Amino acid sequence: MTTNRSTNSLFSLFNPNSIAVIGASSKPGKVGYEILKNIVEGGFKGGIYPVNPRGGEILSLETYRSVKEIKGEVDLAVIITPAETVPEIIDECGGKGVKAAVVISAGFSESGNLKLETKLRERVENSGLRVIGPNCAGIVNTSNNLYATMEIRVGKGEIGFITQSGALGGAILAWAKDKGIGMSKFVSYGNAVDVDETDLLEYLGEDQETKTIILYIEGVKNGRRFIEVARKVSMKKPIIAMKGGVTEMGSRAVQSHTGSLAGEGRIYLAAFKQSGLILAEDVHEFFDFSKVLTHCERMRGERVLVLTNSGGPAVMATDKLTELGLSVPEPPQELKSKLDFLPKYYSKRNPVDLTAEATAETYVKVLKTLFSTEFYHAALVICVPPFFLDSVEVAKAISEVRDEVKKPLIACWMSGELVKDAIPILEGKGIPNFPTPSRAAKAIWALYERSKFLARHLKQKTFKNLKGFRP
Amino acid sequence: MTTNRSTNSLFSLFNPNSIAVIGASSKPGKVGYEILKNIVEGGFKGGIYPVNPRGGEILSLETYRSVKEIKGEVDLAVIITPAETVPEIIDECGGKGVKAAVVISAGFSESGNLKLETKLRERVENSGLRVIGPNCAGIVNTSNNLYATMEIRVGKGEIGFITQSGALGGAILAWAKDKGIGMSKFVSYGNAVDVDETDLLEYLGEDQETKTIILYIEGVKNGRRFIEVARKVSMKKPIIAMKGGVTEMGSRAVQSHTGSLAGEGRIYLAAFKQSGLILAEDVHEFFDFSKVLTHCERMRGERVLVLTNSGGPAVMATDKLTELGLSVPEPPQELKSKLDFLPKYYSKRNPVDLTAEATAETYVKVLKTLFSTEFYHAALVICVPPFFLDSVEVAKAISEVRDEVKKPLIACWMSGELVKDAIPILEGKGIPNFPTPSRAAKAIWALYERSKFLARHLKQKTFKNLKGFRP
Repeated sequence: MTTNRSTNSLFSLFNPNSIAVIGASSKPGKVGYEILKNIVEGGFKGGIYPVNPRGGEILSLETYRSVKEIKGEVDLAVIITPAETVPEIIDECGGKGVKAAVVISAGFSESGNLKLETKLRERVENSGLRVIGPNCAGIVNTSNNLYATMEIRVGKGEIGFITQSGALGGAILAWAKDKGIGMSKFVSYGNAVDVDETDLLEYLGEDQETKTIILYIEGVKNGRRFIEVARKVSMKKPIIAMKGGVTEMGSRAVQSHTGSLAGEGRIYLAAFKQSGLILAEDVHEFFDFSKVLTHCERMRGERVLVLTNSGGPAVMATDKLTELGLSVPEPPQELKSKLDFLPKYYSKRNPVDLTAEATAETYVKVLKTLFSTEFYHAALVICVPPFFLDSVEVAKAISEVRDEVKKPLIACWMSGELVKDAIPILEGKGIPNFPTPSRAAKAIWALYERSKFLARHLKQKTFKNLKGFRP
Repeated sequence: MTTNRSTNSLFSLFNPNSIAVIGASSKPGKVGYEILKNIVEGGFKGGIYPVNPRGGEILSLETYRSVKEIKGEVDLAVIITPAETVPEIIDECGGKGVKAAVVISAGFSESGNLKLETKLRERVENSGLRVIGPNCAGIVNTSNNLYATMEIRVGKGEIGFITQSGALGGAILAWAKDKGIGMSKFVSYGNAVDVDETDLLEYLGEDQETKTIILYIEGVKNGRRFIEVARKVSMKKPIIAMKGGVTEMGSRAVQSHTGSLAGEGRIYLAAFKQSGLILAEDVHEFFDFSKVLTHCERMRGERVLVLTNSGGPAVMATDKLTELGLSVPEPPQELKSKLDFLPKYYSKRNPVDLTAEATAETYVKVLKTLFSTEFYHAALVICVPPFFLDSVEVAKAISEVRDEVKKPLIACWMSGELVKDAIPILEGKGIPNFPTPSRAAKAIWALYERSKFLARHLKQKTFKNLKGFRP
């Protein structure tokens, strides 16, 4: 059904000139009110037409008795009416020339009403509309202030978010907003009678405003097409995916939830990995991985330099990195000998430990010495400032190295309040910071996974020829 | 060396009537100034005697030229003088009748100066003092406002924290303070010429103010004694441990850091587990596990009920729980049939999904029905509030069930800002809340691990006889 429609036709869905809100309500607390309010308060600049058989005004907007009564053109319909009325409303929208619809209404297959969903699917196919839903939490395009959703209004950013679970989607939007993270697009696609996960992946793959895609998925409709599209998109931008239903019991839970066959969870995971999807295991990893994948160059091998002023966190990072398949090797002898300016009792074996005596100058000197050669493929710099070390100074100093060395530089400035002024300096320079060594290590893993995928698929010679890289 | 001294002799270390700060400085930014300031500003009520050969006043306190000059009794000496002066100062302290010392000074074995460390060890043995350090970040006892440390001043609480890495310790204190988490004691034990990790574990095991012990450790001095003490203490209160140097490279990093032989990381982990230590993998787990282990009853088996209003997070929880060895089984038929009051299309198979239609009443009704029988050993209640559901009402409602059902009840109220008022209600009633389903699941795992340990060692018949429990 989706093959004879081009992805470009999703354009009107995200970029309408005008929106009809069908099932708009004048009662605060009703979904039909809250979504209209979100669209109005979100600052959408085009026409907004509430539709309600009772007429009147809602939120100072004139209300229409039906979509047919609207005089101007309507690009997008947001439908919040009772389930059984939706197929006819789709017909009406088709008659009116509406290009796309988001069906928020629930009460279809997810409630056991398969017949109604089949009817809806037929009407959608005949209507010419591109339809998201039913049983979904809506869509967002922050670039044109389109918040056709009942969820919290997230700010602008470069992450495009596709979710099979509306509620989880909402919770993740709230999480992002709490942390000051923005998004380009958000789509909860619900039962997917028309537009499905693969269409959306393809669309966001082309979307200029989306630099990274995050995806919560339980099952896919057409595995082969999904894998093909995912691989194609992955070559352009990172896709970070969380798969629900990996275990047997989780898979049974999926069946009860979205009716998807989660199938053999592990087989899914293997296929996802083949397509370049980076697998996240918890919510914060969506954003940790987005950050590292947006800001860092690719890794040309698995060797990580760990530079620290505190042994414990460096040990934690080393454990985690090596558990994840990366390597924290000692510098070759000729490189190590260049560290003779350091006191004898500093460890120079990697992790290189500058101890509590560390200064911004020694951080920079050691980093330049070891990281400007080809030996290390990424560097993790850890700073746990004692009160007499200004962590802002260290951040500024290593930011300068970032400009010179075009390789991934990752930071772990630990100590809450004590480092809060240093973090914006690091991140402003493209040095992503993580609050614990384990999270920093896992982010480096994500970068390594993506680097390997790109190396394999883009077959860059410079990449393959470098020693120490094991694709 | 420690065997002929009783643990009770650590009492003066944490409960001194008076403190000498030897090496106190009048210069802000110097360690000798900042530690004195922490002791004064922390509100320690006993005598505080700065010692500095120059005399004069520091922070409005009279300064003594040496510890001998102090007229009153001194229970605790905090030593911040250059390394080579420390052995003699210990002698002086011995002569003065000082009972314990914390040696902050660095420049011993960690800098390659093994000879000086041996000398210090000998003097300590002859002095009769109990000594923490050298090369440590100090100690804290919040119950008497003793902050003999250069680290941030953490608030009062029930967690006792022992760390082999001073800087990591400081970073974790800062993390705790950021999250509003308090502690009973903090000890960074450094090179441990006298008091070691096992002594401290034993002491905190007896400490009335400490309900949970958290431990960062790279290596132990006397493995057999550590294991014995850890097992004994674990029967009384939970010990949550993070082990640095689990992998081969991590183990090499440990050797460079504390000089400990981390040994075969995996063997360590197995021994730790045998002793009842719960293993944390990242900083937040220290506090997640403390919370669940402090507030929840033991689990009498592995069966977890997952009750939710959103499918996605329930799927995530189910995956994580089963990956960790727990079980999310369907209710037996006779129990399931008691859910007939729910609409047909709700999933009743566990996870039980109340969908977006969930109300506080249905949450309670389902929870009471399924959780008041013996079948489930713990319940995870997930709430992702749509804007029309008051998550505070749901929190209040399930809190009432908590009073009736004496089994572990864990919450995952997701959505940042939207649930912030509900969380104190839950936690005030002994229902620990976690921000993501994966973290909630991992916390339940910690509870399950501890429950199994206690079942095995306390051999409680009621525990062993219950079906479904696999120790």
